[in-house]
Amino acid sequence: MYAQPVQELIDTLGRLPGVGPKSAQRIAFHLLLVPRDEALRLVHAVVEVKDRIGFCTRCFNIAEIGCECEICADARRESNVLCVVEEPRDVVAIERTGEFRGRYHVLQGAISPIDGIGPDQLRIRELMDRVEPEAVSEVILCMNPNIEGEATAMHLVSRLRPLGVRTTRIASGLPVGGDLEYADELTLGRALSGRRDVEL
Amino acid sequence: MYAQPVQELIDTLGRLPGVGPKSAQRIAFHLLLVPRDEALRLVHAVVEVKDRIGFCTRCFNIAEIGCECEICADARRESNVLCVVEEPRDVVAIERTGEFRGRYHVLQGAISPIDGIGPDQLRIRELMDRVEPEAVSEVILCMNPNIEGEATAMHLVSRLRPLGVRTTRIASGLPVGGDLEYADELTLGRALSGRRDVEL
Repeated sequence: MYAQPVQELIDTLGRLPGVGPKSAQRIAFHLLLVPRDEALRLVHAVVEVKDRIGFCTRCFNIAEIGCECEICADARRESNVLCVVEEPRDVVAIERTGEFRGRYHVLQGAISPIDGIGPDQLRIRELMDRVEPEAVSEVILCMNPNIEGEATAMHLVSRLRPLGVRTTRIASGLPVGGDLEYADELTLGRALSGRRDVEL
Repeated sequence: MYAQPVQELIDTLGRLPGVGPKSAQRIAFHLLLVPRDEALRLVHAVVEVKDRIGFCTRCFNIAEIGCECEICADARRESNVLCVVEEPRDVVAIERTGEFRGRYHVLQGAISPIDGIGPDQLRIRELMDRVEPEAVSEVILCMNPNIEGEATAMHLVSRLRPLGVRTTRIASGLPVGGDLEYADELTLGRALSGRRDVEL
């Protein structure tokens, strides 16, 4: 149906996350129709990122290759609290809240036996190696509230407890602005069991 | 917040159609995390398309640069019926129905005074130039059923009528599987005014 280079582009775009066949076709036609310069801007942006960006040598957040990320390099961040997340994008989400002034550790995934991902495929060893030298007093587990995230959290608790470091887990419950009536029973159950005394 | 090459990639991705800031960030992180080879496959696909693909010299559908598209080059297609569409992707949509055996003419847009697009910015002159040499007996106007599409259709009718060629417009009405109750009043009005005698 399409000329081969067009089909190839549609297929490649369709492998990107969140891009279905329809969007892939739409983006491909867009790239076809725009001036060459504009299409090549995307090309350069991808090449630049692959050439220059890798992982933070300390926390495995994204960073310039061979360097520490901006957060690790920022001396004003508290160094004794570590927030452990699955992916670099989770760092962005937490930073956006403005509620956290410590540092991060990015596991680069979660334990998922089905996908063949065990503790050794994650940056858990590197996390353990940070606790003592950085005098970490609290590790906040910010994995996703799903099966893989919970399994990862449980595993980390069992590894961190012997080190005597305080280990906490972010709260699970009703989203702000959410509607009790429409909450699924798991979330509502968590919201109940995680209830807190109201302080006046 | 992000290293500069990452922000640049997110911005560039966010300019693609249907890609919002969230998806752009998600795709950027995906490209960051995949092996270099896989990210470069996208790069090569874009470069290949820009190097090799342009517009059909006859109908302005997409085609290898300097060539006719596969449909124009196909001797089995009826040459006396032309289906006029706005964009190359409309050709794909109509081909998928399997209902049309004629050829196409791609206007590469629709008349839209607000965007500064008048008849001279479209491939209308090239359409006129095809009618006589190709002995076209019917032009089917397949522009979108919106203001720009209607304006373009009306303009084409006024240009084609003096040439004595039959000019038709695709039907507008309820989508198949659609629900009368939820149809907007414009569509329902069109469906009513476009009613046909039922044949047994």
